[in-house]
Amino acid sequence: MQSDNPTAAILVIGDEILSGRTREGNAHHLAGVLSATGFDLREIRVVADDNAQIVAAIRAFDKSLGGAYDLLFTSGGIGPTHDDITADAVAEAHGTRVEIHPEARAILQARCDRMGTELTENRLRMARIPVGAKLIDNAVSGAPGFSIGNTHVMAGVPEVFRGMVAWLIPQIPGGRPVQSDTVLVRRGESDVAEGLKAVAEEFSDLSLGSYPFQDPAGWGTNLVVRGLDAARVAEAMAALKHRLEL
Amino acid sequence: MQSDNPTAAILVIGDEILSGRTREGNAHHLAGVLSATGFDLREIRVVADDNAQIVAAIRAFDKSLGGAYDLLFTSGGIGPTHDDITADAVAEAHGTRVEIHPEARAILQARCDRMGTELTENRLRMARIPVGAKLIDNAVSGAPGFSIGNTHVMAGVPEVFRGMVAWLIPQIPGGRPVQSDTVLVRRGESDVAEGLKAVAEEFSDLSLGSYPFQDPAGWGTNLVVRGLDAARVAEAMAALKHRLEL
Repeated sequence: MQSDNPTAAILVIGDEILSGRTREGNAHHLAGVLSATGFDLREIRVVADDNAQIVAAIRAFDKSLGGAYDLLFTSGGIGPTHDDITADAVAEAHGTRVEIHPEARAILQARCDRMGTELTENRLRMARIPVGAKLIDNAVSGAPGFSIGNTHVMAGVPEVFRGMVAWLIPQIPGGRPVQSDTVLVRRGESDVAEGLKAVAEEFSDLSLGSYPFQDPAGWGTNLVVRGLDAARVAEAMAALKHRLEL
Repeated sequence: MQSDNPTAAILVIGDEILSGRTREGNAHHLAGVLSATGFDLREIRVVADDNAQIVAAIRAFDKSLGGAYDLLFTSGGIGPTHDDITADAVAEAHGTRVEIHPEARAILQARCDRMGTELTENRLRMARIPVGAKLIDNAVSGAPGFSIGNTHVMAGVPEVFRGMVAWLIPQIPGGRPVQSDTVLVRRGESDVAEGLKAVAEEFSDLSLGSYPFQDPAGWGTNLVVRGLDAARVAEAMAALKHRLEL
C-alpha cells in the first residue's frame, strides 16, 4: 500500500508473554488505533525483561536514535517491582539517566493522600523517569508513562495501557487513516488466488489480502482491500467482486 | 531464570496483524508449548508480508545463519496467493531457491483427487519449498510446512498452525520444562514489591514476577515463581508466602 504516513513500531516488554502465561493484547489494541489514525505500523517485537534486549530494540526502532521508524511505542515494565526495568533501559538507550520526576512524584503523592496510604520507596520507583522526558497521563492508576525522543513508554496493564493510548495518540500528528473493505467468500484461498492477483496488479497502490479460515460451516476466505482513498478502495472491491462473480 | 535449554524465537508474518485486523494467537499458543517442553523463548517478532523484513529477521534469529537463537519458528505467508512470500524469503535467507517439492506435490494431488478438484497452478504454489528443506506434516488441510537449517516454517491459519506444532515439537530435542507456581494477592504491586524483591534475591536461580490486574473486585496482583526445578520453585513460593504473611 502506498503511504507517506508516519511509520511506527511497538515494543512489548515482559517475560509473561514469552512464557505463554499471558496472551498479549496491547499491541493488537494499539495496532487498530494506529491504523485508524493514520500511522503505518511496520513491526511488533516482544522481548523479555532484559536490559540488553530492550536497549537494542529501542535503538533499532527510534528514528531519533538512528532507528528504522518514526515512532516507537512500548508496553510494560514501568511498575514498582524489581523486574520493572524499562525506565532504566529507555534512559540508557537515549543516553541519559533516570531521576525522580517532581511532577510524577506529586501525582503519586496526591494519589496516596487520597487513598490514605504512604508514598513508600517502592511506590516512588514509579516516579523514576529519564531526564528530559515528558509525562504521559494515567487516568486509571496515577503512575505516569513518558515520552523521550520518539519513544513513548506506557504501562503493560491493559486498562492503563488503553488509557494512556487514548491520551497520547491525539497529541501526535498522524496521517491519513486506512480505509478498508472486506468480503467473505465461501471458497478456499486457491480458488480466489488468480482473481485476487489480477485485481492486486491493477490496483498496485492498494493492499489486497486474503485470510483463510475454518469454522463449523467449513472453509472460507476473507478478502480485504486496504488503502488511503475510500473511493479507490471501493473501486477495487467492485473490480474484485466482478472478477470473482460475487 | 538459569537455564541451558535451547533458545527460540517466533517470527509472525502478516499485514493483517499489523493493521489491527487480526489478533495474533499463534505465538501465544506456541509460547505455552515451548515453555512446557523445555525451550527458552526469547523473542517474538511480527513483520509485514515484506521480503526484506522477513529475510532480515530470519538471519537475525537462526543460529545456523549466524543468528541469535537455537531455533526459529515462523507463522504465516505460505498459502497460494500473491502475498504469500514466506517460502521465497526463507529460501533467500538460507541461500537457496524454491522448487516444486515432489512429495509436497503428491500430497496436494492426493488431496485434490479426494475432493474431486483440480491441482491448479495456484494450489501448486503450496508445493514450492526451498531446496534442502524437510516437510512439516499438515493433517488439517494438506499443504505442508517445512524445516530448513534451524528455521521451522508453519501456516498462519490457527487450526493448521496448531496441527503443525503438535507434529513438529516432539521431534525436536528439548530441555527441561518450566515449572511455575502462582499466588493471587488482593494488594497492589507496590505493597508486595519489597517482599518479592527479597525473595527474588534469595532465589536468584529462579524467575519471580508480579502481574498486576484490575477486575470488578478492584486491584490485585498475581505473583509467579518460575524455574526448572519443581522443589526449588515450591521452596521459593513458601518463602514468598511467609514473607508476605499469606
